[in-house]
Amino acid sequence: MAISLGANRYGKAEIRLVHVERSTPTHTPTDLNVSVALAGDLAAAHTDGDNANVLPTDTQKNTVYAFAAEHGIGSVEEFALRLGRHFVETPSIDRAVITIEAYPWRRLGPHSFQRDGGEVRTARVTVDADTQHVVSGVTDLVLMNTTDSEFVGYHKDRHPTLPEATDRILATSVTAAWRHAAVDKDWNAAYATARSALAEAFAGTYSRALQETLYAMGRRVLEADDGLAEVRLALPNRNHFLVDMTPFGQPSGDIFVATEQPYGLIEATVRRS
Amino acid sequence: MAISLGANRYGKAEIRLVHVERSTPTHTPTDLNVSVALAGDLAAAHTDGDNANVLPTDTQKNTVYAFAAEHGIGSVEEFALRLGRHFVETPSIDRAVITIEAYPWRRLGPHSFQRDGGEVRTARVTVDADTQHVVSGVTDLVLMNTTDSEFVGYHKDRHPTLPEATDRILATSVTAAWRHAAVDKDWNAAYATARSALAEAFAGTYSRALQETLYAMGRRVLEADDGLAEVRLALPNRNHFLVDMTPFGQPSGDIFVATEQPYGLIEATVRRS
Amino acid sequence: MAISLGANRYGKAEIRLVHVERSTPTHTPTDLNVSVALAGDLAAAHTDGDNANVLPTDTQKNTVYAFAAEHGIGSVEEFALRLGRHFVETPSIDRAVITIEAYPWRRLGPHSFQRDGGEVRTARVTVDADTQHVVSGVTDLVLMNTTDSEFVGYHKDRHPTLPEATDRILATSVTAAWRHAAVDKDWNAAYATARSALAEAFAGTYSRALQETLYAMGRRVLEADDGLAEVRLALPNRNHFLVDMTPFGQPSGDIFVATEQPYGLIEATVRRS
Amino acid sequence: MAISLGANRYGKAEIRLVHVERSTPTHTPTDLNVSVALAGDLAAAHTDGDNANVLPTDTQKNTVYAFAAEHGIGSVEEFALRLGRHFVETPSIDRAVITIEAYPWRRLGPHSFQRDGGEVRTARVTVDADTQHVVSGVTDLVLMNTTDSEFVGYHKDRHPTLPEATDRILATSVTAAWRHAAVDKDWNAAYATARSALAEAFAGTYSRALQETLYAMGRRVLEADDGLAEVRLALPNRNHFLVDMTPFGQPSGDIFVATEQPYGLIEATVRRS
Repeated sequence: MAISLGANRYGKAEIRLVHVERSTPTHTPTDLNVSVALAGDLAAAHTDGDNANVLPTDTQKNTVYAFAAEHGIGSVEEFALRLGRHFVETPSIDRAVITIEAYPWRRLGPHSFQRDGGEVRTARVTVDADTQHVVSGVTDLVLMNTTDSEFVGYHKDRHPTLPEATDRILATSVTAAWRHAAVDKDWNAAYATARSALAEAFAGTYSRALQETLYAMGRRVLEADDGLAEVRLALPNRNHFLVDMTPFGQPSGDIFVATEQPYGLIEATVRRS
Repeated sequence: MAISLGANRYGKAEIRLVHVERSTPTHTPTDLNVSVALAGDLAAAHTDGDNANVLPTDTQKNTVYAFAAEHGIGSVEEFALRLGRHFVETPSIDRAVITIEAYPWRRLGPHSFQRDGGEVRTARVTVDADTQHVVSGVTDLVLMNTTDSEFVGYHKDRHPTLPEATDRILATSVTAAWRHAAVDKDWNAAYATARSALAEAFAGTYSRALQETLYAMGRRVLEADDGLAEVRLALPNRNHFLVDMTPFGQPSGDIFVATEQPYGLIEATVRRS
Repeated sequence: MAISLGANRYGKAEIRLVHVERSTPTHTPTDLNVSVALAGDLAAAHTDGDNANVLPTDTQKNTVYAFAAEHGIGSVEEFALRLGRHFVETPSIDRAVITIEAYPWRRLGPHSFQRDGGEVRTARVTVDADTQHVVSGVTDLVLMNTTDSEFVGYHKDRHPTLPEATDRILATSVTAAWRHAAVDKDWNAAYATARSALAEAFAGTYSRALQETLYAMGRRVLEADDGLAEVRLALPNRNHFLVDMTPFGQPSGDIFVATEQPYGLIEATVRRS
Repeated sequence: MAISLGANRYGKAEIRLVHVERSTPTHTPTDLNVSVALAGDLAAAHTDGDNANVLPTDTQKNTVYAFAAEHGIGSVEEFALRLGRHFVETPSIDRAVITIEAYPWRRLGPHSFQRDGGEVRTARVTVDADTQHVVSGVTDLVLMNTTDSEFVGYHKDRHPTLPEATDRILATSVTAAWRHAAVDKDWNAAYATARSALAEAFAGTYSRALQETLYAMGRRVLEADDGLAEVRLALPNRNHFLVDMTPFGQPSGDIFVATEQPYGLIEATVRRS
């Protein structure tokens, strides 16, 4: 059987770009990490080292900077769409995937800011000849409920497990991404809506399983915005185990040990059918 | 339109397990990071917090340890297959994905070892009622050629780019994964074969594009083992830029600056058709 | 010349402890990473493997949990002092150094919280037979001014350097630690005062050198609290280089590239003399 | 009491430099991470934003590249000494500290290499008007003994601890640094000697405490090289806990769980007195 090239793509990853809006004394920074991945008629580069169809990744990077200077950023979704549409105009390129992470800053003064480590906004846009898809999201959103979480009634087999828990800490680092049905929208408002829905559903759900919390979060995001087709969630369970104080003659209940490895990981899509 | 649960899975990630074969004075350690992901009839856990069908992730972890004690590890592929077949016997579980990273140690003495940071061996096994798939791989394999690499003749557009390079450093951190056509094999021998093919193809290929090197590597892996269906490669371009010594009155050519961001990223599948 | 043991210490590092105050429906979490280092009459453990004087690091960990359960945390400085005083009561232990990192959480509801990644509060307490020292601090406080920073008039030598900058972005990740003259204080109020002084001095200083900003920050902290003896600051210069848009026919000035390596690093102590 | 500037220094950190010796077809790469820290008459930069005495960190970086091009690297100690001596010739600079990490590569062919993650060689050189100090070292050297380690007979107090262990895994990530009595030496040979002494002492010592292993390692390094004044070691205890197989009906003894947090940390200096 012959050997041949299958699916392939290439691009520039992790282009760090900070745009500062300085037209008035009250500045506004936009702090981005942009990645570009392109696919198209690129077989000759692989099989013959023929780069005629290759738009260099360095050019991709320059384009990101030039577009930010020429058009500004707007929302990350708009910026990604503009870049994606541009790249597929290159004759050899059929498809562009633009991924952006936006790092938030809190204002301290008219031109002073503190990096807000609380969460990262994300966007992923896919553009080809006929279709455009926009997926918005969030990552590194770490949430904790200190009660209203239990885990009982699960399947037992021959490998005994932890005792059932009727009042535990539930903590997770949310990675969520929601797909929009259309590509024209008030993206910043939509982000605020979805992000609030996630946090409120987490805080307001009595959790009998992390799966139940996940589903409540996904459902709430879809209910809050009719323009969303589906939401994907990945929730690692950041365990906080109750420390047994019996050996030290103290009551247990208030002291927990936070562990990193291993961890449960719950992943699901919630969709509008 | 109604909201409903889509694809979902859950499991225990990053179970750290070290097995030491100590039946003779010459010990042999096996150092693994095992992740389990299960899918099946789990809707009720999401929609109603009903855990009756949930095999707890803590039980999954116990199972990994118990199987290592009962059967030993053998190769990572065997160990993953054994675990996967076990988990799908749980009535509510249809599919199990077992992912393993194996960290190598160099022998210093009969019971003494040095952690070898040179690369990490990987395996991913998917088991469901009817099928079993085994994908072996490697990650963090960092390779460099200090010549025999060029990048010329590429597409130019209005965003000018770096000058053409006729003799550059080519360095990358290889992530590769090859899918086996069958699930019965001398897995350790197969790993050694594929890993050597990758390194030899990288070292022996005159590179006119990183794509050309990628394709040569994938091709070599398939040529070396008839039992492979395809190989996927992701090669970040770890740039080493020539430092311009002209301002300091020195000849350029021997001094490079290694940069981390941004980086080119080339991804492709090479397959047997 | 004979070989002998010099200065030595040992302890348990990175004890993760989460305390949740749940005596009322409005919970309050305290999320800590505690490290203990002890010194004393420990030569025999090194030279003869005699552990009679060794308080195991596992016991140190247990003590941290038991003290949190028995006495609560209070401020991190109080908790560290209480631990340090306890450890030096062990006959073989002369000195204890307790280091704590406190991770902040924002309240979302009575028992719901979001991890606030904006900064980490630190404390380091040293206790020996006669003296007690408390050093409070902050790390990972990332600040940025988008104007009011220049860098001109510096020393030139034969290795030419970047052009002078009359309006640049100044960004840094603050690590600061201030030493208290006494060990009895309203620690939480003192932390709030120092932390505000750092941010306000950064935002309010026209910077002709990162050194000038550092000194202004240290001075402001000392001015804000008479009970401080000195403050140490380490300020990495998180470069944001202006992207030259000339090749793309755009005006330069609004677009910057954030780089990680290499970086300038400014360190100094500001003290009350 | 007046506020004033105390100890201070500044410099460029993490200058990544790869030098490739290509004068013959068999190339040799040297892969370094260089940091420079300078102290001197720098008060005016802090108090008045006067940069006249400031040699910019960008110039420091250029100097590192220019010296590598002009003189080559030789050993990292030689390169650091040459840089340090240069920087203190600047009128305003009294002291220079040059720190270097060297990343090893394994040869795969005449111009092909694999990054060897096994350990990092380090050097730290301090130069001022009258004195020069050279400290060589290693970091990230991860070692494991799968037997010949115990931990018994330790001090017990009221916070009960883990049971005594008569046969445990001992694993650590070595950070060691040895100070040379002189500044003229075959540095590469000295590194090989010290590094071997560390690994051999670790492998060959029956360990009743990690302190005993540390001391044996330090002693062996000093014994192997009369030109060393002292060696400092920091050994984190990378715990491998025996997994209790009793609940699963399996014998315990071969399966361990590797944990990262918390960890014991043993630090000491061994010196020639």
